[in-house]
Amino acid sequence: MNGFFDFSHKPYILDTACVAGKMESEGPLGGEFDFEDKSNLFGKKTWEEAESEMQRLAYNAVLSKLGFSFSDVELAISGDLMNQCVAGAYSFSNVPVSYIGIYGACSTFALGLAIGSVILNARRNIRIATLTSSHYCSAERQFRTPLEYGSQRTPTAQWTVTGAAAIILSGRKENSDIYVKDAYIGRIIDKSINDPNNMGAAMAPAAADTLTSYFRETGTHPSDYDMIYTGDLGEEGSEILCDLMRESGYIIKDNYRDCGCIIYDIANQDVHAGGSGCACSACVFSARLHKLMRGGKLKNILIIGTGALMNPQMLMQGGNIPGIAHLVHIVKE
Amino acid sequence: MNGFFDFSHKPYILDTACVAGKMESEGPLGGEFDFEDKSNLFGKKTWEEAESEMQRLAYNAVLSKLGFSFSDVELAISGDLMNQCVAGAYSFSNVPVSYIGIYGACSTFALGLAIGSVILNARRNIRIATLTSSHYCSAERQFRTPLEYGSQRTPTAQWTVTGAAAIILSGRKENSDIYVKDAYIGRIIDKSINDPNNMGAAMAPAAADTLTSYFRETGTHPSDYDMIYTGDLGEEGSEILCDLMRESGYIIKDNYRDCGCIIYDIANQDVHAGGSGCACSACVFSARLHKLMRGGKLKNILIIGTGALMNPQMLMQGGNIPGIAHLVHIVKE
Repeated sequence: MNGFFDFSHKPYILDTACVAGKMESEGPLGGEFDFEDKSNLFGKKTWEEAESEMQRLAYNAVLSKLGFSFSDVELAISGDLMNQCVAGAYSFSNVPVSYIGIYGACSTFALGLAIGSVILNARRNIRIATLTSSHYCSAERQFRTPLEYGSQRTPTAQWTVTGAAAIILSGRKENSDIYVKDAYIGRIIDKSINDPNNMGAAMAPAAADTLTSYFRETGTHPSDYDMIYTGDLGEEGSEILCDLMRESGYIIKDNYRDCGCIIYDIANQDVHAGGSGCACSACVFSARLHKLMRGGKLKNILIIGTGALMNPQMLMQGGNIPGIAHLVHIVKE
Repeated sequence: MNGFFDFSHKPYILDTACVAGKMESEGPLGGEFDFEDKSNLFGKKTWEEAESEMQRLAYNAVLSKLGFSFSDVELAISGDLMNQCVAGAYSFSNVPVSYIGIYGACSTFALGLAIGSVILNARRNIRIATLTSSHYCSAERQFRTPLEYGSQRTPTAQWTVTGAAAIILSGRKENSDIYVKDAYIGRIIDKSINDPNNMGAAMAPAAADTLTSYFRETGTHPSDYDMIYTGDLGEEGSEILCDLMRESGYIIKDNYRDCGCIIYDIANQDVHAGGSGCACSACVFSARLHKLMRGGKLKNILIIGTGALMNPQMLMQGGNIPGIAHLVHIVKE
């Protein structure tokens, strides 16, 4: 098993845009998103339509930033948490761009960047959009219970980020100096965790597997990177990851943070163990990390998207929660 | 928009294996599947577990045919119809292979082959497994109503194929002379069809869009190919496709068939408009077309996977059924 992909031809990140909802706009990144809507509905009538609309808004925003029209991008790669990945599918309905649907649960942001980068190494003269989204209200309906039930949340539960982000990758440098240097596609790890309110614990072993495999493959160490970010392990999962990494001989705590602990003020917002969802790492990258890289404050980072690959039916049938983690190494020239 | 991918480095199809259920084993391809189970349960207790088990069986079967172990394949690409794509995720739980989840509804077979081929053009020295599955009983529960309700089926309804197929692709020729020459990733087309019992009509415009785009891009015509196959348009959708293609100036009826009309004996099996599901084109290719290519009876075919990208919730909220179609061009040297 070797999911390491080194890119001899650099896939450049031209730009990114993101939108977010109420809880996110009231958090530490409030004001840094390209578009915020405190109603969480984005002009639509249902949470599901709202999620799809967020992808549309993020895509239009990034095209607009770059002065691009639909015809300037050849391929879109999108994935989300909704049954049958409809957020992406409906947002790209009748949009004249080839469309690849992916599913990696909350690891989708990193998975999309990795696949897009691989494709740009096979076909160099195109641009690719990668998108993802999640919505607290649509996710609660699909994975736990509809909000109207008023269920009590456990301390280990995480808060699904309401947001979407779009990135434009290009096989040409254009005006960018930020690119995906390499990537690691993870394998599926099942450590018999079956509590849907403790996703961090279910995903941490997959993050550890991917990160240790990556360090061994590249012969690098945590200190070789400015920062290491996981997608959405939350407080609980982050601690488990640090423990697992230490057991493997890697101390990551000095330059490691989880995006689920960045997007919310955990001490003062009612989000329990932190943020989760496809949009968690996507919006943190788009709203903050990409800007820090542009400004030169970050030059060399790892992002490990973390996903829990179950659905509620499998849990009801006695199944566990398999985890997966995909890594992208993003560098400023 | 240009989803055409030409493969300068040939992605070889080393071998394939498939499993199928009762209705399929009683149809025209009965006896040609590698494994058949008339109970449709494959030793498991639920339909969902059975679907996951089918992918596991197909994967083990194709590895066995090639004399391979898990460590001989670097990457798996899998997708299915289940919520959050759990059939693939659970079948690859703790399997030591990097895993990419994709979602293309019933176009997944062609999408997986296309993505696998693109990846082999970026990284040539690996082997990739592409898998897909569908199960009549799990699909009815997720997309329409649980079987126990005893709902009446409409004449345009199709029968979801219970089956799974696995293919091993390689960047090296090894012992194969069959490869993916090029591929076309389609865009999402919504023609305002919203009847979940008439998927053929919803998907046919996407198939026509992809096929005409492909002919224009390559400067070829239907008669340049031994056969053109669509994934699962059924009788209704196939007729619509022939009409749409004729309007665009392409006569395909002389060398065109839909896999949904091949896998069942439509006149004598109670499948209404024909087969559907991710496994439809996958099992027809694996059980029949690949063998015809090996024997030299087919040397140059197009397979257009067709997918309906909705979920029941979006339909209940007034949404349409967006369609998508991905094309792979498979050739014998």
